[in-house]
Amino acid sequence: MSIAEQYFPEEPKAPVVKSTEFPGPQTKAKINSLGDYMDNRPVYFVADYEKSVGNYIVDVDGNTLLDVYAQIASIPLGYNNPALIQAAKSDKMIRAIVDRPALSNFPGADTEEIIAELIKVAPKGQDKIFSGLSGADANELAFKAAFFWYQSQKRGFHTDFSAEENKTVMENAAPGSPELAIMSFDRAFHGRLFASASCTRSKPIHKLDMPSFKWPKAEYPSYKYPLDKHVAENAEEDKRCLAIVDNLFKTWHAPIAALLIEPIQSEGGDNHGSNEFFQGLRDITLKYGALMIVDEVQTGVGATGTMWCHEHFNLSPAPDMVTFSKKFQSAGYYFHDPEIIPNVAYRQFNTWCGDPARMILAGAIGAEILKHDLAAKAQKVGSYLFGKLEALQVKYPKHLRDLRGKNRATFIAWSLEDGAARNKFLSDMKTVGINIGGCAEDSVRLRPTLVFEEKHADILVAGIEKVLSGY
Amino acid sequence: MSIAEQYFPEEPKAPVVKSTEFPGPQTKAKINSLGDYMDNRPVYFVADYEKSVGNYIVDVDGNTLLDVYAQIASIPLGYNNPALIQAAKSDKMIRAIVDRPALSNFPGADTEEIIAELIKVAPKGQDKIFSGLSGADANELAFKAAFFWYQSQKRGFHTDFSAEENKTVMENAAPGSPELAIMSFDRAFHGRLFASASCTRSKPIHKLDMPSFKWPKAEYPSYKYPLDKHVAENAEEDKRCLAIVDNLFKTWHAPIAALLIEPIQSEGGDNHGSNEFFQGLRDITLKYGALMIVDEVQTGVGATGTMWCHEHFNLSPAPDMVTFSKKFQSAGYYFHDPEIIPNVAYRQFNTWCGDPARMILAGAIGAEILKHDLAAKAQKVGSYLFGKLEALQVKYPKHLRDLRGKNRATFIAWSLEDGAARNKFLSDMKTVGINIGGCAEDSVRLRPTLVFEEKHADILVAGIEKVLSGY
Repeated sequence: MSIAEQYFPEEPKAPVVKSTEFPGPQTKAKINSLGDYMDNRPVYFVADYEKSVGNYIVDVDGNTLLDVYAQIASIPLGYNNPALIQAAKSDKMIRAIVDRPALSNFPGADTEEIIAELIKVAPKGQDKIFSGLSGADANELAFKAAFFWYQSQKRGFHTDFSAEENKTVMENAAPGSPELAIMSFDRAFHGRLFASASCTRSKPIHKLDMPSFKWPKAEYPSYKYPLDKHVAENAEEDKRCLAIVDNLFKTWHAPIAALLIEPIQSEGGDNHGSNEFFQGLRDITLKYGALMIVDEVQTGVGATGTMWCHEHFNLSPAPDMVTFSKKFQSAGYYFHDPEIIPNVAYRQFNTWCGDPARMILAGAIGAEILKHDLAAKAQKVGSYLFGKLEALQVKYPKHLRDLRGKNRATFIAWSLEDGAARNKFLSDMKTVGINIGGCAEDSVRLRPTLVFEEKHADILVAGIEKVLSGY
Repeated sequence: MSIAEQYFPEEPKAPVVKSTEFPGPQTKAKINSLGDYMDNRPVYFVADYEKSVGNYIVDVDGNTLLDVYAQIASIPLGYNNPALIQAAKSDKMIRAIVDRPALSNFPGADTEEIIAELIKVAPKGQDKIFSGLSGADANELAFKAAFFWYQSQKRGFHTDFSAEENKTVMENAAPGSPELAIMSFDRAFHGRLFASASCTRSKPIHKLDMPSFKWPKAEYPSYKYPLDKHVAENAEEDKRCLAIVDNLFKTWHAPIAALLIEPIQSEGGDNHGSNEFFQGLRDITLKYGALMIVDEVQTGVGATGTMWCHEHFNLSPAPDMVTFSKKFQSAGYYFHDPEIIPNVAYRQFNTWCGDPARMILAGAIGAEILKHDLAAKAQKVGSYLFGKLEALQVKYPKHLRDLRGKNRATFIAWSLEDGAARNKFLSDMKTVGINIGGCAEDSVRLRPTLVFEEKHADILVAGIEKVLSGY
């Protein structure tokens, strides 16, 4: 029996489409009344989570959709996973919900055990954690750690702040509040708060009208596909992009404390970088005494066939910080150097320092992934699916361009001819019972759960073919 | 039977101190082993939340402390409150935990009902909400809304972004990323992410080494106490501070989109402003076409005798946004003007747009406060406690200076002679079985739960007297 069958004996065998148009009438009415309280324009549909099971999401019109988007890539083990329901019903969880501690001031007797579970699935080379609440929060907490570290290297780790630093910081002025930078990449997405949005370079809508930090932007490689037919050109592209990074470190007007990068740029279009590119970046950060922060918010937690995507790259030494959120349900950053913990207490601090309820869930998610070897299983089903899509590409080359994500499990994407065609495709897929997401202007991204199996892949591929055959 | 007795028939009658020194031996060992995973320096003690009940927190050494700090002012209804346990065990909660939706893309059938519960306890004049995850997050989301609104007033609400805005924003440059400011106040605390830290002006440690936005800082009134003996001087102080605000609006080098203020500056020392001061600020924001954001992260949710502290001020018109977190367990901002919702979708957006698990809890907290009239009850016990502290002040004037918080329920504070005396006092209070917090350099703040009653106040006052009588 497959894992999906073990978890979800009641999982539907196939999608059921009841509505003649999307959104259906019940959903439309619900979207309308939601408008009294919130911005309802981004709502795709209103789900019935009580009825949703495994890889299938059910909407309030009774449509049962195979879900290969999984809440913007954030449902790890399927809807109503029994192992997670068990965790949610535990006494430990109930206490975490009703007696939420200020974790750094008054941790509970079970806090150590809760954190230890998260360390069990830490990226290779990492053994410490600081918890936050969302992907943007995780990244900005990592920026803080990076700036503290960078200045402490200059000042001396155990050197006190000067009187001038203590005075000027209250005026938001140097030297207490220095001009320092984080380097990010063109087409990157790292969140939408102010510092994280300063690093986000995917779409104007993410940051228009927001004041920003004037931080450097490097270039992420743009490869030619299929990769095995463009080896030399893509290696040149790596070199070109690495040279830009090196040059920015040399010439930027303010010190760059850290380089921030996604192992696969996700919102930005599922852009991949080679092992060589990432090792090159690691070398450059060492050369200039900057930290390397790998943003695994979307790529982490088994999605690419390893627990953490950057583990594919065999980076040496390991990155300085790895941020996470989404599929892990809890957020924060992993690290290993004790000097990433600031020289004095209360520098990296806030009321809650994470949410133990979400941390308990993350621990349960990690344990299930290890127990059932779900990252390796995702790799296997991903290879199967990639093969099917390659075959389909021969038939529909116009609508299945630049197929990306080989050997990255189900973390697969492709481009259509333009944005209008992509949007029509996403919308048409609902009529064949599949909920699927886009990225960048013209791409489709697959982000199924870790319990997405060959049988689900077959339904997905048949659905894609049915839609494309009508074009 | 009092509410505390109804909720907690097993609540201890008095503190129990077992340790001869704090932290006790078990706590010490636990703090030490926590150091393997996290920064353990801020840990006061390790709590046993299973054994904690109502107003009493139990540590792993078996000390039972009356808790008038309540997790940095964030436990609303006492430890292991049965009404919240019921909410935590509900099917709705379990679904919210295991099937966490991307609330703005795929809300659940119960999302509207969950939000409606939060609207039931909205500040007067507010009827819409945007949810976030922490106080800092809530404030920064409100800044985003303010900047979007401010630019949309200039641009025209339905006017498209220009090609130049769309282009320059990707370079973090004007006009797409304009220079705009938020005005905050000296001694303010609004969080520790980058934009929120730029508004925080309480202590250097909150923001040293962090790059910041160069935003204006006004002055918050410093009153003379007792208030009724310094009416004329304090009215002058209001005028002086209002003139500074007005002048900053006139002279600041960049447009100020919003004024951000706490109804009572909490981390900054429990500094109060008069009704006239706050109405004056409201008038100035209207004069200059800026928004008024009231940060109720610490003051909100019944703590000052009304559901929201700024309701004491009778502001007209109501503030544009009111941010919340802490005692509400969920975070975000309330608002009323439909134009606070940006002109196009996906501007105020992120993966989760809040946490329905924490929103369900907030709804249950709000419902209990209304059902049992807990804000009014806190006002009553606060008056009782304030009277007792005034009497004690006559006896110990040196250690009970500038008693603050009359008619603000149990949101009471005072100053000691200096920081060392204050720190010793906080520490000595544990030896008489009371967990109590400080603010600013030399002050003590009371932040008990909303089920803190006269009998608890008597224990607190006796404990304070016992400690002070030894000085």
